[in-house]
Amino acid sequence: MRLARFKDERGEGLVILSQDGRARGLRVHDGGFPGDLATILARGDGALKTAAERLRSSPEIDLARCDYLPPIANPGKIICIGLNYADHSAESGYAVPDYPTFFGRFTSSLIGHGAPIVRPVVSEQLDFEGELAAIIGRGGRNISREDALSHVAGYSPFNDGSIRDYQHRTPQWTAGKNFDETGAFGPLFVSADELPPGCRGLRLTTRLNGNVVQQASIDDLIFDVATLVSLLSEVCTLQPGDVIVTGTPAGIGAARKPPLWMKPGDVCEVDIEGVGLLVNPIADQRALGGQPGTRS
Amino acid sequence: MRLARFKDERGEGLVILSQDGRARGLRVHDGGFPGDLATILARGDGALKTAAERLRSSPEIDLARCDYLPPIANPGKIICIGLNYADHSAESGYAVPDYPTFFGRFTSSLIGHGAPIVRPVVSEQLDFEGELAAIIGRGGRNISREDALSHVAGYSPFNDGSIRDYQHRTPQWTAGKNFDETGAFGPLFVSADELPPGCRGLRLTTRLNGNVVQQASIDDLIFDVATLVSLLSEVCTLQPGDVIVTGTPAGIGAARKPPLWMKPGDVCEVDIEGVGLLVNPIADQRALGGQPGTRS
Repeated sequence: MRLARFKDERGEGLVILSQDGRARGLRVHDGGFPGDLATILARGDGALKTAAERLRSSPEIDLARCDYLPPIANPGKIICIGLNYADHSAESGYAVPDYPTFFGRFTSSLIGHGAPIVRPVVSEQLDFEGELAAIIGRGGRNISREDALSHVAGYSPFNDGSIRDYQHRTPQWTAGKNFDETGAFGPLFVSADELPPGCRGLRLTTRLNGNVVQQASIDDLIFDVATLVSLLSEVCTLQPGDVIVTGTPAGIGAARKPPLWMKPGDVCEVDIEGVGLLVNPIADQRALGGQPGTRS
Repeated sequence: MRLARFKDERGEGLVILSQDGRARGLRVHDGGFPGDLATILARGDGALKTAAERLRSSPEIDLARCDYLPPIANPGKIICIGLNYADHSAESGYAVPDYPTFFGRFTSSLIGHGAPIVRPVVSEQLDFEGELAAIIGRGGRNISREDALSHVAGYSPFNDGSIRDYQHRTPQWTAGKNFDETGAFGPLFVSADELPPGCRGLRLTTRLNGNVVQQASIDDLIFDVATLVSLLSEVCTLQPGDVIVTGTPAGIGAARKPPLWMKPGDVCEVDIEGVGLLVNPIADQRALGGQPGTRS
């Protein structure tokens, strides 16, 4: 099934998309609203199907008149993986790793499909990173690699927008990965049963202004989805709605000569075969009224 | 004012402590429960005082029969600062930084005062880091250093328990900083008006089994609380209930020869003058039933 979170002047809601692209669903204040996606997933086996049935019998909603929101409203954890494609690890000056490089994103950095990725006042080094995001359905600790994919409810495209000078200003990348409105997520949550196990073999393409800037197969992941789930669960309890952003392939703007930064007016797309097309224009924080000291 | 979050067999709740140490408060299902601390802070100016008055006129609660919980139930962001004391930066092999090193913790790693810090099955390198945590009251973006302290609602002790081999296994420290039940937070939220601005001059002491292992003044912070709030808000919108964990001074176990790891049966204390005493025993994940593959 394919679900989307949306917002219009009547509120936020959740829809299911049918084969012909029509959306049916409910807003949070409607009777029978099944809860947000993380809440549904936390109810356990069968809850997603029950919610999907309810949405399918709900009124049609015209998504063209709505804003898309990130599929998960407030993930308990957004765990990103660095250096998870050999060609990207090489272009970034690192050896091929023998353990995944985890770092965190905060929910405050997320935007949905169609919303602008914002270049902040303090830097011009805004870079793209097309990635596959896996969404945890069933939580757990110390999950074996063999069981791992049964803990993944579905997948979405993700653009891990990065402010490179801030990313490399200190030993930790966190600042450069957490600017407001730089993490694009969506448009859809696609349930795992519609896709090959672990999204194996699917093609990931990032385009900037229509030009292909990154292209890879999910097969090229050094640590595949099952391995990431298993290793992460050795560290911490995974919870329904947690998001694992699996890493980006070669082609980032920072590794080009000269560097290719995203700038206001550009359009960036992350296209994953079967999972969806995430499109975001680029805007300037200043143009959006974000002068230093003015926003609070 | 001094608030604590607690749990007993009747549920979770919030209390206010009076000068004589007595606690009065309400559980979440009691009529008139003012909400959790982040919810109260999000209501804006005056809401904390109103909530405190309501708690003061509520029934007495015997905290000796309760478990303490982290003061903030589910922070939107837990932002930790690395290398923020010159002596610790030196012992860790880094130059004195010119910009704060931010990294993230997930809520899933938090425990309260009195709960065991858990040494995981996969590592013996469990280390202490006594720190001052600042809790955001009023949110904002691009906050000036001059205004920054007016955005801080209060403070708590924090033990940023770290699994050192995992911390340094990749370029990013995230894994080693996010093991379940390694981040101790509390016991109390102490409102900023009871403390010197930015906790300037207060003494921070970490003890392991009664022996002093870290000692510093909050004056020794390279980037003080106001500077951290201001620089962080350049990156992302700070929100009520966000937690900034300000860094640890020299003395960590990993920098000693031989290293001093915390082990089951030990007791670690983080004692900050005026802010409180955080005490946690150390336990073994294995002894708690956490064999690989058994917990989910």
